[in-house]
Amino acid sequence: MADDGTVADLGEFGLIAAVVARFPATPDVLLGPGDDAAVVAAPDGRVVASTDLLVEGRHFRRDWSTAHDVGRKAAAQNLADLVAMGARPTALLVGLGAPPDLPSDWATGLADGLAEECALVGATVVGGDVVRSDTVVVSVTALGDLGGRAPVTRSGARAGDVLAVAGRLGWAAAGLAVLGRGFRSPRVLADAHRVPAPPYAAGRAAQEAGATAMIDVSDGLVQDAGHLAAASGVVVALDSSALVVDGPVAEAAAAFNVDPLVWVLTGGEDHALLAAFPADAALPEPFVPVGEVREGDPVVLVDGAPYAGAGGHDHFRA
Amino acid sequence: MADDGTVADLGEFGLIAAVVARFPATPDVLLGPGDDAAVVAAPDGRVVASTDLLVEGRHFRRDWSTAHDVGRKAAAQNLADLVAMGARPTALLVGLGAPPDLPSDWATGLADGLAEECALVGATVVGGDVVRSDTVVVSVTALGDLGGRAPVTRSGARAGDVLAVAGRLGWAAAGLAVLGRGFRSPRVLADAHRVPAPPYAAGRAAQEAGATAMIDVSDGLVQDAGHLAAASGVVVALDSSALVVDGPVAEAAAAFNVDPLVWVLTGGEDHALLAAFPADAALPEPFVPVGEVREGDPVVLVDGAPYAGAGGHDHFRA
Repeated sequence: MADDGTVADLGEFGLIAAVVARFPATPDVLLGPGDDAAVVAAPDGRVVASTDLLVEGRHFRRDWSTAHDVGRKAAAQNLADLVAMGARPTALLVGLGAPPDLPSDWATGLADGLAEECALVGATVVGGDVVRSDTVVVSVTALGDLGGRAPVTRSGARAGDVLAVAGRLGWAAAGLAVLGRGFRSPRVLADAHRVPAPPYAAGRAAQEAGATAMIDVSDGLVQDAGHLAAASGVVVALDSSALVVDGPVAEAAAAFNVDPLVWVLTGGEDHALLAAFPADAALPEPFVPVGEVREGDPVVLVDGAPYAGAGGHDHFRA
Repeated sequence: MADDGTVADLGEFGLIAAVVARFPATPDVLLGPGDDAAVVAAPDGRVVASTDLLVEGRHFRRDWSTAHDVGRKAAAQNLADLVAMGARPTALLVGLGAPPDLPSDWATGLADGLAEECALVGATVVGGDVVRSDTVVVSVTALGDLGGRAPVTRSGARAGDVLAVAGRLGWAAAGLAVLGRGFRSPRVLADAHRVPAPPYAAGRAAQEAGATAMIDVSDGLVQDAGHLAAASGVVVALDSSALVVDGPVAEAAAAFNVDPLVWVLTGGEDHALLAAFPADAALPEPFVPVGEVREGDPVVLVDGAPYAGAGGHDHFRA
């Protein structure tokens, strides 16, 4: 819908109607938007659920990202959480807080982005809420199904396991650096900040390959490896020479005279998967080994020593 | 935890730990907070889900409501949505956007309120997210189970059905009027604005009694009856003489020289249940008949005429 108006022009119920029209039904949707609650298939007899809140100015900027980008990112970070459990995402519920002067095209663009990202995994949006707020706020809850398999938690890593990563590291951090210095290119890095590319198929593949533990890398590899180490009660030993520094990341780091490994080790928002596998497991595509699990008090070692660089992200201290 | 500090003092992970400690496990919690996602029982093979966003200054004021009140209200309005489908609520996921200077006691008070309201229906909080934002934002998603029964939607009302209401009408609106004029009493009305009292057991009772349609009255009786009329393709005819004007509502209306029926017909946030029943159904406690369903183009009639008063709440136009 091309529209010059604002969400106030559309009104709450006009906005809901315009947005809901973007979300296709899927076989998992037993009752879609429009009632007091949705009904979604949970064939496994269990439902996997995760929620995130995105706030304008903290998690996205409207001058850096289109509404479509924000929709894709909001969906992606929640879908990645489910995939990191080995689950198949089925449905999203979305809350939108919007100022009355928000262009209605922004709201419908957000919905298009949510729908497009969901379609990558066969999910859709089944419900939501729209309210007035001074800045744009997007809440997303993702639901998924385990298909009869055990969830892959953070707590199952054992000494001797191989650690492996699927997906990008450092791309979103490099993109943020690019945008933060007023550049729009390299486009691939700016885009990586705007819309992550989680390795959706890798979660299920890791589970089938016998992964003992898995985590979505949202806050930075070292920080999220620390969560896995703490939950499993193990030492996570990363080998920096095994970490892939992709070309665009290396080039931006050279241009900005920074160590690309800092972005790879501490950059968040790429939504790679970090998983532990038994030493004799065949690593599924696209996982690459990056270290090993050892016995000992929980800590993350990089090349044998506690990492001295930036420790990741704390939402209240950053 | 008595604490003089702020959420910034606690830090993101300290805050999460303090909050999570408030949420008991229940038999429905297969994997609780602390992993990428929670796993909740869905014994029915379906999950019922609804989400809401509450924004400081719009849905609550920190000078009118305690954190505990806000937690109870945030939980209640989502639990009421599930109950209006005939579902048994099992779990909540909660997002909190907080300014760094928010007292940590406010965040833990919110958690206590959420936990207390959930306990009324045997549910609990299984996951969440905390982020930084300029004003306080609370997102809540509720999950529930239908126990093998069909959901009671808004769309099943048929001509000849009896309309009935369970729960309070006009109390929260009267409370808002009291607080808005600077009064703190009558306490029962101010409290009704701060914390609704949805008739939780009535949803299941209505379903078992054969309710053909049901809706949570969150935006006002006339407006929500209009949603039911539109979804069912029927006329909803309300009889104002059948609507109970409770004593405190009547007294406040007299004191403020307003018609109490305006609060009863248009006041939101009480989370009563409006349901349609076959004419020969025995109405379960505490439902009282308030009108009937007729054939015709969807409209809400009050005493035979379209209601001319305030039409309810539009978040962007209010």
